Amino acid sequence: MERLSLNQRTTERWTVAEAVDGCVRAGIGWIGLWREPVQSYGVARTARLVAEAGLRVSSLCRGGFITGLPGPGRDAALDDNRRAIDEAVALGADCLVMVVGGLPDGSRDLAGARARVADGVAALVPYASQAGVRLALEPMHPLYCADRGVLSTLGQALDLAAPFAPSSVGVVVDTFHVWWDPDVEAAIARSAGRIASFQVCDWITPFPADALLSRGMMGDGHIDFRRLRRLVEAAGYDGPIEVEIFNADLWAADPDEVVALLRRRYAEHVLG
Amino acid sequence: MERLSLNQRTTERWTVAEAVDGCVRAGIGWIGLWREPVQSYGVARTARLVAEAGLRVSSLCRGGFITGLPGPGRDAALDDNRRAIDEAVALGADCLVMVVGGLPDGSRDLAGARARVADGVAALVPYASQAGVRLALEPMHPLYCADRGVLSTLGQALDLAAPFAPSSVGVVVDTFHVWWDPDVEAAIARSAGRIASFQVCDWITPFPADALLSRGMMGDGHIDFRRLRRLVEAAGYDGPIEVEIFNADLWAADPDEVVALLRRRYAEHVLG
Repeated sequence: MERLSLNQRTTERWTVAEAVDGCVRAGIGWIGLWREPVQSYGVARTARLVAEAGLRVSSLCRGGFITGLPGPGRDAALDDNRRAIDEAVALGADCLVMVVGGLPDGSRDLAGARARVADGVAALVPYASQAGVRLALEPMHPLYCADRGVLSTLGQALDLAAPFAPSSVGVVVDTFHVWWDPDVEAAIARSAGRIASFQVCDWITPFPADALLSRGMMGDGHIDFRRLRRLVEAAGYDGPIEVEIFNADLWAADPDEVVALLRRRYAEHVLG
Repeated sequence: MERLSLNQRTTERWTVAEAVDGCVRAGIGWIGLWREPVQSYGVARTARLVAEAGLRVSSLCRGGFITGLPGPGRDAALDDNRRAIDEAVALGADCLVMVVGGLPDGSRDLAGARARVADGVAALVPYASQAGVRLALEPMHPLYCADRGVLSTLGQALDLAAPFAPSSVGVVVDTFHVWWDPDVEAAIARSAGRIASFQVCDWITPFPADALLSRGMMGDGHIDFRRLRRLVEAAGYDGPIEVEIFNADLWAADPDEVVALLRRRYAEHVLG
């Protein structure tokens, strides 16, 4: 259990303080934080709270959204990423998760959007490296290619990371996003030294009506977690395993019960 | 317009006879048929109707669903594919589209399911070749990996097709399924001689509540159709371009108006 991390969005109803307390009550030593609730509570205040509780921050979500065309909007997005890097420093987060963004409004130029992601990462790396923050590129399920993340496979994320030091630019392996990929085994092997975060949640069917809340508790769906965990471990990853689930039914449930359930399911399906 | 084909599911409300009449009225020379409505109308009767109307059948949907574990269920699935091959012969269809199937109930063994697809194709090829029917392997959007098609990329479909003659086993390039793929350009180039069907429909956002009815009219979404059409043409494909859209709003509309709209959108967004 010492590698288990609660991503705070899994217990959406909890404030930062409640999530920290919930982790302590449940004996969970890691937490994954999101910028918006952290900003609401205060970045420095969150950092103190987490440290006093003896928790470590497995990731901060999220930077990214850097597919915009050159201009003031893109400049603002890059500035916002620099603020996210500052927040990651303040929180002592292991990495800043980068959700790169979808196609700009009205654009069908996917290759162009992907090229701008590469440019944006290159623009942010000096600032992040200077700050000692690792950018964690998150390939997203192709379901989200149009509106959330044009980075669709782990192989593509690795190609994007390749020009930079592994300590500066890593990748996220999220089971929900990569489980279907026929090349996932080779891509995870290639990720050695680059895995900044390993996140788990299940792919459930029938596919929920809200595509953004389509993730399931481990064991409720179709993913072979043990296989993916062994692959990332074979690639040398021994860091936290973060449970990040966006699901309307779980968000409606008592968060303490959700945490108790995810501990059991983690033991059964991820460690197994 | 001579390459335009109406897949009959685009005008779901029409019977086979109405769809054939609708194509004739709209000056469309090709039709894509589905087994269930064809069986309702009668296979031989459909074949006569289509021939008398001067139409050609661009594809028959669908064979496949061959991921089951060995046993009577799998044997029945293979037998059903042989009947589908017979129907494709009777209809003079250019190809039989193969939707390979998802994970068996309760199984998380994706690699095993994929291996059984390869076995199933190998089992069907002799019968199909003898009958002169080309099996068209359809890679499906990873969204459908769990419950509909474990064949997730065009590259994977090509690997599966490779042991067989291109005249026996081809691939379907459906814009909805492949548009997001970072390797699509290379995969389409590799498809030379293997492209059995080119299907078009758009990826729309926000993602509709019913994942099976999530396809959009060309121009309503994010896909660059011209780019994909040029890629398949550069790979030597000059056959029909089939419009296949599952969408609740279009199904509720007057089918003649849907056909008029798709002709305009085809001219503007696909030919362009």
